[in-house]
This record gives sequence, structure tokens and C-alpha cells, in this order.
Amino acid sequence: MSAVPRAVATTGTDTAIVLLGTGVVGGALLRLLATPAASTLYLVGAANSKRQVANARGLVPGRVAAALAESAAGRDDAGLLAALDDSGAAHRVVVDATASADEAARHADWLGAGYHVVSANKAATGETLAAWDDLRRAGRRGGVLYGDAATVGAGLPVLSTLRRLRDCGDRLLALDGVFSGSLSWLFNQFDGSRPFSALLREARAFGYTEPDPRLDLGGADVARKLLILARTAGHPIDTTDVAIESLVPAALRDVPLEAFLARVEEFDADLERRRADAAQRGRLLRFLARLDEHGRARVGLTEVAPTHPAARLAGTDNLFALTTHRYRAQPLVIQGPGAGPEVTAQALLGDVLALTAAQARAGV
Amino acid sequence: MSAVPRAVATTGTDTAIVLLGTGVVGGALLRLLATPAASTLYLVGAANSKRQVANARGLVPGRVAAALAESAAGRDDAGLLAALDDSGAAHRVVVDATASADEAARHADWLGAGYHVVSANKAATGETLAAWDDLRRAGRRGGVLYGDAATVGAGLPVLSTLRRLRDCGDRLLALDGVFSGSLSWLFNQFDGSRPFSALLREARAFGYTEPDPRLDLGGADVARKLLILARTAGHPIDTTDVAIESLVPAALRDVPLEAFLARVEEFDADLERRRADAAQRGRLLRFLARLDEHGRARVGLTEVAPTHPAARLAGTDNLFALTTHRYRAQPLVIQGPGAGPEVTAQALLGDVLALTAAQARAGV
Ligand SMILES: NC(=O)c1ccc[n+]([C@@H]2O[C@H](COP(=O)([O-])OP(=O)(O)OC[C@H]3O[C@@H](n4cnc5c(N)ncnc54)[C@H](OP(=O)(O)O)[C@@H]3O)[C@@H](O)[C@H]2O)c1
Ligand SMILES: NC(=O)c1ccc[n+]([C@@H]2O[C@H](COP(=O)([O-])OP(=O)(O)OC[C@H]3O[C@@H](n4cnc5c(N)ncnc54)[C@H](OP(=O)(O)O)[C@@H]3O)[C@@H](O)[C@H]2O)c1
Repeated sequence: MSAVPRAVATTGTDTAIVLLGTGVVGGALLRLLATPAASTLYLVGAANSKRQVANARGLVPGRVAAALAESAAGRDDAGLLAALDDSGAAHRVVVDATASADEAARHADWLGAGYHVVSANKAATGETLAAWDDLRRAGRRGGVLYGDAATVGAGLPVLSTLRRLRDCGDRLLALDGVFSGSLSWLFNQFDGSRPFSALLREARAFGYTEPDPRLDLGGADVARKLLILARTAGHPIDTTDVAIESLVPAALRDVPLEAFLARVEEFDADLERRRADAAQRGRLLRFLARLDEHGRARVGLTEVAPTHPAARLAGTDNLFALTTHRYRAQPLVIQGPGAGPEVTAQALLGDVLALTAAQARAGV
Repeated sequence: MSAVPRAVATTGTDTAIVLLGTGVVGGALLRLLATPAASTLYLVGAANSKRQVANARGLVPGRVAAALAESAAGRDDAGLLAALDDSGAAHRVVVDATASADEAARHADWLGAGYHVVSANKAATGETLAAWDDLRRAGRRGGVLYGDAATVGAGLPVLSTLRRLRDCGDRLLALDGVFSGSLSWLFNQFDGSRPFSALLREARAFGYTEPDPRLDLGGADVARKLLILARTAGHPIDTTDVAIESLVPAALRDVPLEAFLARVEEFDADLERRRADAAQRGRLLRFLARLDEHGRARVGLTEVAPTHPAARLAGTDNLFALTTHRYRAQPLVIQGPGAGPEVTAQALLGDVLALTAAQARAGV
């Protein structure tokens, strides 16, 4: 929308933001806030897990890291929200770039109090259904918006497309894809020429996996994204409704990280057998997430035909294939990097700008 | 955006629309307007090339075809706009589902007069740069929006994604893809087992091509879409700036349709030679559109490696691969049906609803 004529200027609006989390994603957002694209925004507060800085008249994004290091102020969300209020800005936004369940639990309060929330943190929308419902209600009460583009596919236009189709009365028949960069890479490489454990060590060395690869291999992060997608598609399902097949052998689930890393060869026999079996049927293994039209959700290793879009993935790409009533002969497919600091920070900025523009139209 | 909390209700807003064109796409939109998804909209006018019907109090979408057949009213845009004005609706939208250059030439006037315009007609944004600039200015003057999602990829989320990336300061380094369903199908099938002419006859029989396949094979329609994409990406280029390689042999360009269809074997020798040459280099032929970071635009037959996303296309799918400053290791890829009445009509409805929602926020 708003195509050619960009009719509704965003000038005259100003947006104050508070940033929670200055790690990989938050750090990239701070760099982005110093660019012309963010010139209508100003940062009035920032925090990591231990300290915070706030100034209702604005902080210099490039100086936040140093300011936090020098700051004596402990963590206290109220102080950050006060900076938003005191800024006098037309739009007040809290950006959550943490993975904190505590912060996620406050999103509904912030919405209810009239703050927009833009989140990369999946703990608010990808956990209990009760929390999801709270968010919906709070957003309605506060008359504000919730930006979640960064939570699935790191800003690939998946959630927005799903919403748009749904608004038009289209019905999702199936959604499937590869929602994890590390699992994408592992199975894109796993062709029998090298054992799975060797690939896993390499993926960890490249930084494709979490320091503890079990966080990826267990499927919980993929399941959270599937939950967010399912709810966005209109299925009120809860965490326990997602069937998750963990790749981690039972014997390795609870051992310390060092022991786990020393024993990754224990993945090999079973996975090689499954790979060879699939290959005999002309099929490939992929770690897929799947949602059907009844809201049944499943995450796990799946055999796919060579014509399946996931069979043709490259690198650490994510894939989302939406089969709907109106896209039923061939799915609508979105593919590309689904993680990374730059694209994730861009997803956060995109959401902040979108809500600013949406509210700016209020002036027309 | 607007994710979970759908905070800003669209209730209380009403949108009146006029539909120009009741052919394949317009007919599908009429069916869509009768569904609950369109319950906030009402149709106050509709027209084909010869007749029109208007009623400021609303028309029944399912009865429009019959009403047009019975109507004695000749074509007269003013009468349709008057119905929008008399409707008293908060939002007034003209939907252009024609391929008429005359109607396209009026989009700027409508915008300037405060009507939103939603178009499947590429003649307004995909022709001269002067017309594009007029639209921008008019939209700004009228304080209204222009919906163009249907013009490229029939609603695949390409233009919206390009805009969002650009808003965030991302820079397009390359855009390439397959923008024509018929050309996609032809080269996805063309593996040397059957001559190109046989595939072309089959594609025409399936209805994948226009009745005169030269309209597809000449590349002009692909070039129009590339122009729209290039301008949306910020390159003010004109029609003559797109280098187009037509597939139609010079000797067949100006002969009558019957003669053309009798002589399609004249495509074969040259295309088979090019295909075999490419195959020797391990490459495939695809009819690609390409834009580089300097705004250079080219449409034509291209050899691609088997790892190129276009090498893995199926059926009549369209493909759009966006390589940007922040998506540079791997492109952001959008793939799927890029034509068809249902998805195109849905793209039009999606744009109408999006502008309604955008304006509804004005009430917050
Ligand atoms: N990395 C990606 O590619 C990507 C993609 C999509 C989504 N995400 C999501 O984005 C979020 C951040 O990821 P990341 O990679 O940036 O993680 P990270 O590098 O570990 O950074 C997390 C940051 O959050 C801070 N933090 C933790 N609890 C906090 C609290 N209560 N208040 C304020 N700050 C707090 C941490 O502070 P300390 O420095 O004091 O520990 C740290 O600065 C996660 O939810 C992740 O799932 C990441
Ligand atoms: N078909 C697709 O999949 C697709 C996808 C994306 C975009 N589009 C675009 O959508 C547009 C419509 O395509 P279509 O396939 O629906 O074409 P179509 O079946 O030929 O229908 C065109 C309609 O426009 C009407 N028309 C022509 N001039 C008019 C005028 N001055 N005022 C009012 N109505 C007028 C025609 O009236 P008569 O019935 O009197 O001739 C007809 O009803 C084209 O611009 C096309 O490029 C189509």
C-alpha cells in the first residue's frame, strides 16, 4: 500500500523508543538508529540485564554501550517508561531485543498502558495461549500496535503475508517449512558423504548453532515460531499442542555441555540409517515444521520429495510455504536468511516505522 | 504490524468503491466482494468498456453482470465518481481492473481529487516516467493512497517488501527473477526432449499464454513489471531504459496471428542451439528480468547455473530474488503464482482493506 504517491507524509510525527537488550540484535539496532532511515525516531532509554540509561531528551545511539558501561543505574522498567512519557513524543514504543521471559510477561501491561511494543523476543507470543490472549486484549484496550516481524524469519514477510491473506478471507490449508538456520544448513549438507556429527561440529564452529546446539536440535525454538504462525493464522493452540520430535538422543539430553560435545558421534548411526532409508525411496531428510488446516502442528525430521521446496534450500536459508484456498495449486513461498543481526534489527526498525506511519495517517 | 492485538478496530469505517473492468479479474473481485472479508466495503458503481451501473446506496455484487447487460448507461467516469461522493462513505476508492491506457491516464486526476486508487492495471505505473511522477504528486496533493499490489506478482508480497526494506535504509544491489507465468512454464519444460514450438502450442492450449502469445514472448509485459519494481526501489528510469530481448523472430513479429501460429516452428532451431550451448556449460535457459544497483534494467533469455533460484522453478510460478545490502549473502526470495483471477482479485481487496485500516487509525 501507499505505493507511488507516499501521500501521507510522516513528517511532523516523532517517535520515542526505549530499547531493552543491547546484545547481538540490540547492538545492530543501535547502529541502525544512527542512520537517516531512523531520523524520525529518537532513543530515550536503553538497558541490558543489569544496567540502564535514560534521557527523555534523547540518547546518542553510538554512545549507548559506553553509557551503559559507566551507568550506576540498576534495572527498573518504570524509569525507562518515564523517559518515554517525559519525552512528549507523539508515539511511545518499547522495543524488546532480549530473550527474557520476565520482560515478555510485561508486554501486555505496556500495551494496556498505551505503549506500542515491538519485539524480537518470542517469549511473549510463542509461549502460552493465555499470554497471547492477554496481549490481544491489552492491545485493544491501549489502542496501540504490536510489532512481531522479527520473531519469525527475522523480518522475512511471512507474518504480514499470513495476516493479509487472512484479512481477505483466504484460508490456510497447510504451512510448512524450515524455520531454523542451523537445522537448514545441517540437512542441506547431510548427503551421506560426511557423518552428521562432523557437520554439527562445523556448524557450531561457524556460529550457526547456539553455543549449546541442543537448543537448536531439540526443536523448541522452531516450535515457538510455529505457534506464532498458527495463532496468526487463526488457530488458538497452546504449547502442548505442538508435537515436537527432538533430534537429541535421550542419553544426551541432560548431560553437561562438555560431555554432550564429546559424544556427538552418538547422533550418527540413527540419522545415517534414516537418511539412507529415505534416499532409497528417492527422498531427502529435512527438519520441517508443519501446520495443517485444522491447526495440527508438528515439528520434526521429515522425508521430502526432491520437488518439495525444502529440498532445494541452500546455506542457512529459512523457508515458509503457504498453501491456501487461493494458493492451492502451488504454494506462496518465502525463502531467505531467517536470522542475523542486521536483518533482525531491520525487522524491528521496520515495525517501528510502520506504526509511526500508521499513526501519522491520523493527522490526515 | 498490528500483529496480535489488532488494536485499532476497523469498525465504524465504511468504504465505497467503484470497479472499472468486470472481466477475468474484475469478475473475481465481484465474487470476493460478496464474502464476509469485504463486509466493510460497499460497491456503488461498476463498468465495462461500454456500459456502467451506479447507485450511491450500494449495488449487489452478484447482480452486477446482469445489471450491466441491462444497463442503458454509456461510459462516463464522472457518473461513477458522483456515486462515490453521494455515498457519504468515509473512504472513496476507484479500483481499476482494466488494461485501459485511457483509464490509467486518469489515476492521477482521481488521486488529486481525493479518491484512493487501487489498480491491477499496469498502464499507470509501468509506462512513462512522467506518468509515474504525476501519480506521486497527485497522491500527495490529494492526501490519498495508491494500491499497486496486483500489478506485480498478482499480490505476491514483492512491492511491499521492497518498500519496507527501502524505508529501513536497505539498498537494493540486484533484483532478478521470472515475472511471467507463461515464460516460466515454457523454460521450466524446455529440456531438449520436445521442440520449443510444441511447448508453445501446449502452453497456449492450457491458457497460460495470451491468445496472441507474442504479447508474452515479446517481453513487454515483463518489462513493465520491472519498471514498476525499479521505480519502487528508487530508480527513476523510463521505458526506453529497459533493454528488452524479444523471443519472437523478426520475421514473425508483424504477421497476422493465424500466420504466426502456423509458423511457430521457426522458433525452434535458434532456441535449441542456445539451450544445447548452455547445457554444455552446465547451465539452463530462463527468461529473466534483471535490475542492478545502478538501475540498469534488462529483460531477456539468460543462462543460469543450476543453483540459481530460477533453475528450480516449477509450473507457472513467478520468482523474485532481492539481493540487498543487508540480504547480500543469500537473497530474499518470493515465489509462487504471479497471475490468476483469484489471487489478483485478492490483491485488490487486500489493498482496499489496507487503506481502510490505515485511515481507520485516523480515528484513534
Ligand atoms: N540473533 C538473531 O539472529 C535473532 C533473530 C531473530 C530473533 N532473535 C531474538 O532476539 C532476541 C535477542 O537476541 P540476541 O541474539 O541479540 O541475544 P543476546 O546477544 O544474548 O542479547 C540479549 C540482550 O538482552 C539483554 N537482557 C537480558 N535480560 C534483560 C532484561 N531483563 N532487561 C534488559 N535487557 C536484558 C542482555 O543483557 P546482558 O548483556 O546484560 O546479558 C543482552 O544485552 C532473542 O529473543 C532472540 O531469540 C534473534
Ligand atoms: N488475469 C490476471 O491473472 C492478471 C494478473 C495481474 C494483473 N492483471 C491485470 O488486470 C487487468 C485486467 O485483466 P483481466 O485478465 O481481467 O482482463 P479482461 O478479462 O480482458 O477484462 C478487462 C475488463 O476491462 C474492461 N474495460 C476495458 N476498458 C474499459 C474502460 N475504459 N472502462 C471500464 N472497463 C473497461 C473490459 O470491458 P469489456 O468486457 O467491455 O471488454 C473488461 O471487462 C489488466 O490490466 C491485467 O494486466 C491481470
